[in-house]
Amino acid sequence: MLIHPDRLFPAEPAARDVARRLYEGIKDLPIISPHGHTDPRWYAENEPFLDPATLFVIPDHYIFRMLYSQGVRLEDLGIPTKDGGAVEKDPRAIWRRFAAHYHLFRGTPTRTWLDHTFATLFGFTERLSADNADAYYNRIDEALRMPEFRPRALFERFRIEAIATTESPLDPLKHHQTIRQSGWGGRVVTAYRPDPVVDPDFDGFRENLERFGEITGCDTSTWSGYLEAHRKRRAFFREYGATSTDHGHPTARTADLSRADAEALFRRVSTGDAGPGDAELFRAQMLTEMAAMSVEDGMVMQIHPGSFRNHNQQIYSRFGRDMGADIPSQTDYVGALKPLLDRFGNERNLSVILFTLDETSYSRELAPLAGHYPILKLGPAWWFFDAPEGMRRFRELTTETAGFYNTVGFNDDTRAYLSIPARHDVARRVDCAYLANLVTTHRLDEDEAHELAYDLAYRLAKEAYKL
Amino acid sequence: MLIHPDRLFPAEPAARDVARRLYEGIKDLPIISPHGHTDPRWYAENEPFLDPATLFVIPDHYIFRMLYSQGVRLEDLGIPTKDGGAVEKDPRAIWRRFAAHYHLFRGTPTRTWLDHTFATLFGFTERLSADNADAYYNRIDEALRMPEFRPRALFERFRIEAIATTESPLDPLKHHQTIRQSGWGGRVVTAYRPDPVVDPDFDGFRENLERFGEITGCDTSTWSGYLEAHRKRRAFFREYGATSTDHGHPTARTADLSRADAEALFRRVSTGDAGPGDAELFRAQMLTEMAAMSVEDGMVMQIHPGSFRNHNQQIYSRFGRDMGADIPSQTDYVGALKPLLDRFGNERNLSVILFTLDETSYSRELAPLAGHYPILKLGPAWWFFDAPEGMRRFRELTTETAGFYNTVGFNDDTRAYLSIPARHDVARRVDCAYLANLVTTHRLDEDEAHELAYDLAYRLAKEAYKL
Amino acid sequence: MLIHPDRLFPAEPAARDVARRLYEGIKDLPIISPHGHTDPRWYAENEPFLDPATLFVIPDHYIFRMLYSQGVRLEDLGIPTKDGGAVEKDPRAIWRRFAAHYHLFRGTPTRTWLDHTFATLFGFTERLSADNADAYYNRIDEALRMPEFRPRALFERFRIEAIATTESPLDPLKHHQTIRQSGWGGRVVTAYRPDPVVDPDFDGFRENLERFGEITGCDTSTWSGYLEAHRKRRAFFREYGATSTDHGHPTARTADLSRADAEALFRRVSTGDAGPGDAELFRAQMLTEMAAMSVEDGMVMQIHPGSFRNHNQQIYSRFGRDMGADIPSQTDYVGALKPLLDRFGNERNLSVILFTLDETSYSRELAPLAGHYPILKLGPAWWFFDAPEGMRRFRELTTETAGFYNTVGFNDDTRAYLSIPARHDVARRVDCAYLANLVTTHRLDEDEAHELAYDLAYRLAKEAYKL
Repeated sequence: MLIHPDRLFPAEPAARDVARRLYEGIKDLPIISPHGHTDPRWYAENEPFLDPATLFVIPDHYIFRMLYSQGVRLEDLGIPTKDGGAVEKDPRAIWRRFAAHYHLFRGTPTRTWLDHTFATLFGFTERLSADNADAYYNRIDEALRMPEFRPRALFERFRIEAIATTESPLDPLKHHQTIRQSGWGGRVVTAYRPDPVVDPDFDGFRENLERFGEITGCDTSTWSGYLEAHRKRRAFFREYGATSTDHGHPTARTADLSRADAEALFRRVSTGDAGPGDAELFRAQMLTEMAAMSVEDGMVMQIHPGSFRNHNQQIYSRFGRDMGADIPSQTDYVGALKPLLDRFGNERNLSVILFTLDETSYSRELAPLAGHYPILKLGPAWWFFDAPEGMRRFRELTTETAGFYNTVGFNDDTRAYLSIPARHDVARRVDCAYLANLVTTHRLDEDEAHELAYDLAYRLAKEAYKL
Repeated sequence: MLIHPDRLFPAEPAARDVARRLYEGIKDLPIISPHGHTDPRWYAENEPFLDPATLFVIPDHYIFRMLYSQGVRLEDLGIPTKDGGAVEKDPRAIWRRFAAHYHLFRGTPTRTWLDHTFATLFGFTERLSADNADAYYNRIDEALRMPEFRPRALFERFRIEAIATTESPLDPLKHHQTIRQSGWGGRVVTAYRPDPVVDPDFDGFRENLERFGEITGCDTSTWSGYLEAHRKRRAFFREYGATSTDHGHPTARTADLSRADAEALFRRVSTGDAGPGDAELFRAQMLTEMAAMSVEDGMVMQIHPGSFRNHNQQIYSRFGRDMGADIPSQTDYVGALKPLLDRFGNERNLSVILFTLDETSYSRELAPLAGHYPILKLGPAWWFFDAPEGMRRFRELTTETAGFYNTVGFNDDTRAYLSIPARHDVARRVDCAYLANLVTTHRLDEDEAHELAYDLAYRLAKEAYKL
Repeated sequence: MLIHPDRLFPAEPAARDVARRLYEGIKDLPIISPHGHTDPRWYAENEPFLDPATLFVIPDHYIFRMLYSQGVRLEDLGIPTKDGGAVEKDPRAIWRRFAAHYHLFRGTPTRTWLDHTFATLFGFTERLSADNADAYYNRIDEALRMPEFRPRALFERFRIEAIATTESPLDPLKHHQTIRQSGWGGRVVTAYRPDPVVDPDFDGFRENLERFGEITGCDTSTWSGYLEAHRKRRAFFREYGATSTDHGHPTARTADLSRADAEALFRRVSTGDAGPGDAELFRAQMLTEMAAMSVEDGMVMQIHPGSFRNHNQQIYSRFGRDMGADIPSQTDYVGALKPLLDRFGNERNLSVILFTLDETSYSRELAPLAGHYPILKLGPAWWFFDAPEGMRRFRELTTETAGFYNTVGFNDDTRAYLSIPARHDVARRVDCAYLANLVTTHRLDEDEAHELAYDLAYRLAKEAYKL
């Protein structure tokens, strides 16, 4: 049996029984996926996925980083190079390499997600290995050509009530337009991720500003025109369902400069005249500006700070971004957020969802902040920590200070479409296990645990993201 | 049933049985409360508490910060503003608001403490909710008018053997005088918390220095007079039972300046001529000076560093201090304490109890320091971490390096008088659960666990604080 | 019974059963001890150990630091002072003092190791205490005079397949020569720890450089001669079995200077002309130089950063190094290692094993780095964290991101020879317990757990260290 019905529940029988009862009540709830990186083209064009390697291995940096760490070359996994140099083209060869290294994922969430997908979508009962690699390949490859494996059919099978993708302000949202015009009923919304026009260190920042002006018809060479461009583009995104913005800065730093200082800073970063610290200060100021706009237009802000992107210089030069070489670093929130909080911390029409890759901040900073400021909520365990132990630590380190109701349920944050049900299932099971432990140690009544299980699996995400 | 007899014990039956046996042996031990913030006026005047809202909600920042984080205005909870602006005056309306939001405390220690108090003091068996808010209010309100709910009667009912309050050197200790003169047998002692005359950033620091001089008859405009004032005032506090001092600095930094440098620094901070860093350096120097005095007079030093006080500027301006907006921040000990340790780390007549709001320091810094320096001991899990998971982490992260005997048992650190038995009960249960796990995994013999349960519940606090 | 057959296994019966089965399969595997500090003289000369106090107490800073922290003077434990001042000379008196304080070790790994040693080597069944101190002393003292308690006999009894000691480049390795020439079959290898000639802050650094030149016949007054000396000395160490180097720097900082800058820096630190930051920069540069040599000669690099050595100034002055006063401090890896990784991170013939004393880096930095870079692997829980809870945290915080196969099994890192079987046994039990929990919560199949138990107990260490 590839997946066990009691997986991730406590081993102790009394707690396991409670977990089973809680899970039974929520396992079939629809999926709210308020933050993620699936490709809207899938839903727009509804074309079949190509083959097992192209679906599972080549786009998934969780998978290929692990193989790379154990000596497998990225070229041998079909990862395209920037200069178009030769890489493996045979999907079956790639799949075999992946299968031969499947033991590397023991104890990782990748393994849990894959097994869940293999079992529930393709009916496998035997663990993937070098021996059965071809059998796996053949069955998946065949399935992908069937209509029920097209993106929209899967969307319905997954019981997705709403899913958000993430786009840059420079994106024309044409896939979202196609979805709308298609008459298909799936709810796919966009989210506003302005990093390319907000982060002076972003590749092509100055050209991006220019294009931003063209797209919006605003004079993005001036501070006021630039801000106006954001306002217009946020409104355009809202036409395509956007209820949130997202900000992936290296730090959580915010600033609240005078108008004159902000204008001067914008002039420097937009004309290539930036001094040391200007890029960081501009990003910081823009978080506060985005908050100001959210107070006006009601969009929920998400802050995803603290990733040192593209840490491996050679891999970045050869393969580009998102190659599994983004490494978390220490992240301060208490000092960093103060300028934004001083201005907007007590607003009633603002919601800021904080994420972290520095787990030390859970109990020391994030839970105390969210347990006080009305605008702050905590996003779920993110990225490397979106895994059973990571989720358990998140609850153990935040609940006693911030409670459950300053958190926002789960989001899968994934570009791996087929893993979405597995990821939500893991989150639901881990939360049921956590609640079961509270019940069995008499810290919570079981009727409350049922209500909480529902809230954590469904209601909180829906409400926090206004979906 | 509002509280279960096995609450907080391990779910696994064998470990639960051990925990029950350990707890049985120590549950009725007297309470030693060596550090806290109850109001000595209560014991001095022994007046009845006013009403449920004034007793439970208005003074408790654990409670109102959580409601505030979820959109309830502080004014609607009766929290007085600095300018005397209108706030809710009806205690029943406040209580109803609190009851309607009681679910927010699920999974928090506040809930555990309140349920324990509601069940053991007022006989409730049903969880507080909007539906039974009035029934709760009526029963509590009635009880508070009965003689057995007056402070001294509760003191005896709670089996408090000794309790420390915390006072500023500027406090005349008149309530403590009244207690002494009253002939009542309850042991209430003060503790010396010199922040208002030691921290140049404290509101009214320079006026405080002046008053400090008047009260002590010392010339607090000179360094030597200022130090002499401390010596005299510490002696005065000892007359009212003080065995400890307490220091709530933003950091744990210490310094050991030459006399000339210290004098010059004092001159700058006391005349308003301080440069950047001077306030921090002065606080640092004063920790070392306080240690020097403790070597002479035997008072135990407590250091409670690392809270960013009054983080919410708007709330501070409108409502003042202690409004639930104090946020922990990163705290270094290894470098910060070195000047003090270089001078006094190997003394035989000095005891310094370290607390932290930065749990990362438990295993990295505090346990290794306490497991070596004779003067250092570790205070219990503090503030946000005074909760079952926080306490478990404290033991798991410190015991393997520092052992049990470099810790000092529990202190409740509370201003919520009625919660004292609940807090000590949680600590006793969590320690019994921790010990039971050691016994059940054969890391400790059960006879040792019984001895340790007694030590952690009673003996260590009594001895560490010389009570 | 002093040690229980189920010690350290989960209390929950189903998980305990799995743990028992896993442990049964690996408990008798030979010991690979790839990193440690035992004295090669023991294996060379094979003389009996002197007496219980000289064997267990006087050389073990885990033991005497704990007694010191509770007020026992180091002099009274026979710790020699630098100036030869009077200390306790009677081993029985020392042993009695130790026995009388044995309760201090409750809950610590020292206790676990000692009980294991007392039970398995000397047949004790009763816990050490003041009462049986003499009986313990007598039986151990007697045993030490028997041939089966000589170092080589114990080596065989412990089933040590290979053990590494750690030597400075200035060490003539004569004990290793003696071992080789003796015809004894025990595999004892050295490891290259160049701190004394790499760290400008090391006592006698400039004299060390001179001796380094004499020993190697290289001109260590020049940068190129100095590097050549390292190359020659590494080759010499390899003749005595060395497969690894080890680096105990205050931080993990690396640098990759131009040749000219490196030369100038070497000139400054080697002539006593170093400016602030030069020592740190030189250590940083030397990590990268050592990596370059490892690419050539295949030696595995170990980095053990983050200890603030000799924190207690008075103890250091009176007793010297390694007196239990080394305190961990915050350690950054993400920025610190980047220069080395930029140059060598993607090499195929380089292996760098990272250790930490800052557990916050496990999930935030070390697991993500090791889960990507081919050259990086994670060493086991180190020093203060080489204990059941520390090991559990290591697995829980690293496995979900780095998997098991980017770790290197266990190493005991000890100078306490008799504790070696106990330490490996603890590691094996804790890993079996961790795996059993994964199996019982259906995150791992039991056949995989058996394979992993073998890998973690034996194979990974052997392969990672090329032993």
